Amino acid sequence: MTILLYDLCGADDVRFSPYCWRVKLALARKGLPFEARPTPFTEIGTIAGGGHKTVPVIEDGGQIVRDSFEIALYLEAAYPDRPTLFGGDGGKGMARFVENWVKTEINPGLLRLIVVDVHEALLPVDTDYFRQSREKRFGMPLEDIQAGREERLSDVRAALEPVRHTLAQQPYLSGSEALFADYILFGSLQWARATSPFQILADDDPVTGWFERCLDLFDGLGRAQPAKAA
Amino acid sequence: MTILLYDLCGADDVRFSPYCWRVKLALARKGLPFEARPTPFTEIGTIAGGGHKTVPVIEDGGQIVRDSFEIALYLEAAYPDRPTLFGGDGGKGMARFVENWVKTEINPGLLRLIVVDVHEALLPVDTDYFRQSREKRFGMPLEDIQAGREERLSDVRAALEPVRHTLAQQPYLSGSEALFADYILFGSLQWARATSPFQILADDDPVTGWFERCLDLFDGLGRAQPAKAA
Repeated sequence: MTILLYDLCGADDVRFSPYCWRVKLALARKGLPFEARPTPFTEIGTIAGGGHKTVPVIEDGGQIVRDSFEIALYLEAAYPDRPTLFGGDGGKGMARFVENWVKTEINPGLLRLIVVDVHEALLPVDTDYFRQSREKRFGMPLEDIQAGREERLSDVRAALEPVRHTLAQQPYLSGSEALFADYILFGSLQWARATSPFQILADDDPVTGWFERCLDLFDGLGRAQPAKAA
Repeated sequence: MTILLYDLCGADDVRFSPYCWRVKLALARKGLPFEARPTPFTEIGTIAGGGHKTVPVIEDGGQIVRDSFEIALYLEAAYPDRPTLFGGDGGKGMARFVENWVKTEINPGLLRLIVVDVHEALLPVDTDYFRQSREKRFGMPLEDIQAGREERLSDVRAALEPVRHTLAQQPYLSGSEALFADYILFGSLQWARATSPFQILADDDPVTGWFERCLDLFDGLGRAQPAKAA
């Protein structure tokens, strides 16, 4: 049965949610057919029976599961005979660390490089919600959050240093193949790629090579989302 | 057969090498008897047949293995029926990421909080080597490297934020039990504990709780190294 994924969408059907991208790659890794149903921010409250505040949410038969990591754990448990998302219990534990590293060390800085671009990529129905919620969180206008991004770019690039060291030793964060920990960081860079013309990574950065390989996974699932034109 | 570990030592037989601590916990996890032979910095060139520049180095029968991660990989392969150090291939890959995160985001800042204390903890035979090599690396006197540490402490504590988030979800970085990824970070904090009276972690920091649990592992293997008196 096809799994239904509620997938955040913007104008021109852009799919930019870093958390939904994690799940799309996880579903593809498991070889599970899925429908990624376009969902504006302001419709999240109505999906899957109501009561949800964020996506991704999946419906798998009668099962409703929310939160990207919870969904990955669910898929690993429900489809144990399909290719693994974690590579064992240690990988399941350490993927949590990677998730939290992305959450605290990467995503906040990355958001401040692209938040105006994300706003411009939204459906008209979502723009007021997004502006108000993000301006409340930061206590300043969207434009001020993003201002001076050229000066902050080097901080975001520097924060990726442990990834560079790891990629000098193995092709993926998870080792010889890309697993959910890779999808976590991929989602963040795909969020920027889909919404913003601002170049996050230098062309010769090893992280760029890894990201390109991730875009090619599963017959180019990630690459099928066009990059935002400069 | 008892495995021989060449273990960095200072005055009063203090064992402070973060990398040797990783290996001691790994050997204990595997349930392998070992001798941790005290080795000054300036004798490393003479151990295990010569040619080594760093410890840990282990001798296991005729096998000589160097580098803490390489040793862990060796032990996992040579003793597959003993408790795992990685929890599967995913954990093996992601432990590399944790190692590189500690290397780039934690150890450099931590060293600048304790480098004079480490120097004072050394055997007299090692003090000139240590001072000269570290002053060359930083381009300044040891005392200047450490100066102002009170102001930099908050940066080191902040860098541990992804660990705090992870410990809110599970007891160890590796999940439900401590594996090599935990030993990696443990080694760094044990390095500070063994050499410096400077308090790195706040008492109420969740990382402190995790570190205390790690000190208790294997009948208090880590705790048997006295903390540096204030």
